[in-house]
Amino acid sequence: MNIHMNLGENSYDIKVERGILKKVSEELNLNRKVFVITDSGVPKQYAQAVAAQCKDGHIATVETGEESKSIAVFESLLKKMLELGFTRGDCVVAVGGGVVGDLSGFVASAYMRGVDFYNIPTTVLSQIDSSIGGKVAVNVDGIKNIVGAFYQPKKVIIDPDVLSTLPQRQISNGLSEAVKMSLTFNEEIFRIFENENPWDNIDKIIIESLKLKKFVVEQDEKESGLRKVLNFGHTIGHAIESDTNLSELYHGECVALGMIPMCSEIVRQRLIPVLQKLNLPTKVSCNPDAVIEAMSHDKKVKNGKVTAIFVEKAGSYVMKDMPCDELKAGIELVREKGE
Amino acid sequence: MNIHMNLGENSYDIKVERGILKKVSEELNLNRKVFVITDSGVPKQYAQAVAAQCKDGHIATVETGEESKSIAVFESLLKKMLELGFTRGDCVVAVGGGVVGDLSGFVASAYMRGVDFYNIPTTVLSQIDSSIGGKVAVNVDGIKNIVGAFYQPKKVIIDPDVLSTLPQRQISNGLSEAVKMSLTFNEEIFRIFENENPWDNIDKIIIESLKLKKFVVEQDEKESGLRKVLNFGHTIGHAIESDTNLSELYHGECVALGMIPMCSEIVRQRLIPVLQKLNLPTKVSCNPDAVIEAMSHDKKVKNGKVTAIFVEKAGSYVMKDMPCDELKAGIELVREKGE
Repeated sequence: MNIHMNLGENSYDIKVERGILKKVSEELNLNRKVFVITDSGVPKQYAQAVAAQCKDGHIATVETGEESKSIAVFESLLKKMLELGFTRGDCVVAVGGGVVGDLSGFVASAYMRGVDFYNIPTTVLSQIDSSIGGKVAVNVDGIKNIVGAFYQPKKVIIDPDVLSTLPQRQISNGLSEAVKMSLTFNEEIFRIFENENPWDNIDKIIIESLKLKKFVVEQDEKESGLRKVLNFGHTIGHAIESDTNLSELYHGECVALGMIPMCSEIVRQRLIPVLQKLNLPTKVSCNPDAVIEAMSHDKKVKNGKVTAIFVEKAGSYVMKDMPCDELKAGIELVREKGE
Repeated sequence: MNIHMNLGENSYDIKVERGILKKVSEELNLNRKVFVITDSGVPKQYAQAVAAQCKDGHIATVETGEESKSIAVFESLLKKMLELGFTRGDCVVAVGGGVVGDLSGFVASAYMRGVDFYNIPTTVLSQIDSSIGGKVAVNVDGIKNIVGAFYQPKKVIIDPDVLSTLPQRQISNGLSEAVKMSLTFNEEIFRIFENENPWDNIDKIIIESLKLKKFVVEQDEKESGLRKVLNFGHTIGHAIESDTNLSELYHGECVALGMIPMCSEIVRQRLIPVLQKLNLPTKVSCNPDAVIEAMSHDKKVKNGKVTAIFVEKAGSYVMKDMPCDELKAGIELVREKGE
């Protein structure tokens, strides 16, 4: 399955195929110096399989987890490339989840003002969401994605076979974003979550989610309008994620929590059972004031209001200017009360 | 004088006018949070004049000199913006020379994946050259401009009045780039250097150099072809500059040295007196092997050859594939022989 991202001179293909990792050199130009970036949480054999197909491949393994999305790690990777003599004609390949993709993309965008970047996402979350769209970044002072670039990959390779090594929690983490896409755009896919086993339908869910994201990104490469719809569940979700006391939650889990206050009552009654079926959280112990405070550091606040995506009816969305007070009332819906 | 840079959605204006610094708010949208970046070598009153015209202006002063073009300083400026609560709708203004412009532009490109960037160059070199073209960067491990982005300013403001506070050596440093532009593109301007007092003609030299650079950048925003002509004198010049033993030389001085080997004998006989008239160096004590070694770290080497710009006839250029040996022989032309 080939999905073409139509972005003028920044166009590229996303190839989805089981087993493609083993013959990735047929898809990518690896006949040069290749910097393969992965993390310690990704099975080693994936990066090794890629490096083995390169003319001159070098694997760099960063620590697993959000902490690697830092300027310090960004700098260390750039220095490593310099040491290895990478030139403007060489390339970077990300093999891992969203952290590896975001970090590697920013490295590729900045090294000599830009070298080719290929992304091989290995988690459900990155396969359906973060590997496409061209938003690359690192975190600073605990604020997520605050420093980065818009930089499109030359190609994205998706091999659903690699998902078989993922723990269940990681799979649910990724499916949360697919629930998000379906709830705002495609009720038919949402019904798969309601009525069927999502894992049995994983290839379909990945492909349909990619097609929806393609549609959005093509129309709004630099997030000036339509692309805001992808932030459904993220306004509160990101703020929960930034709150360091809650750092044990995964991104998709925060998005699950963030979607709940952003629906009509009728949609919420359908959403909550879906999240429970996926073992995603629907309640969290948090301080609403701290969450609002974290949100105010986010890039989406303007004049004390937040333009947030709201779902009145499954498969559609509206944009709503919401004052912080209203958001705080929403957070109460997911707050776990003590005792 | 208004020069329009035609770069599609990245288009912008360059305004050249004596005294414009004092009324810059008529040209730029300063009715928001403004991060004014300057350095300790720039007269304080310039950044203050800009900040005074902002709704909410904040001045950040970095140390003067190339050392400030580092990832550490880049990160500290980003953290400062975060602390001050800058949002995606705010902006960065550079007030200074090329170091400040390159650093500030990279900060603006990366903060929240890009905020508006205005450049107010205050040296001859940055007014005629580095303030336009959209190449922003920092240095890593002593390699110049190895990490950065292509990021165009929203507007460039050039006030030749600010040049009056510059020491003579800084002025010559900048005029070296104007000599470069004229030698490759416009013999008429080169004759001003030969036959008249360049300082008396500074406004004309700035404007004509900007027009030449506009012509080149418009046709090749991301340096894939024609833009290489701007590297005339830089292949060897950058390598001399990277050689830490020679760090007392200015950029334009290195370019002056770098042009000499890259001309025909007849052009060289006209170039050397011009450089001498401007008090620019025509000889340097250096180790040709070390210079070649520094060059091989540069992004322009491919298969042991360098595509370099060569001037056979004043006002024109050719592209030449030069093996490192030939370049080494060229370096001998500017090497000061010791006892």
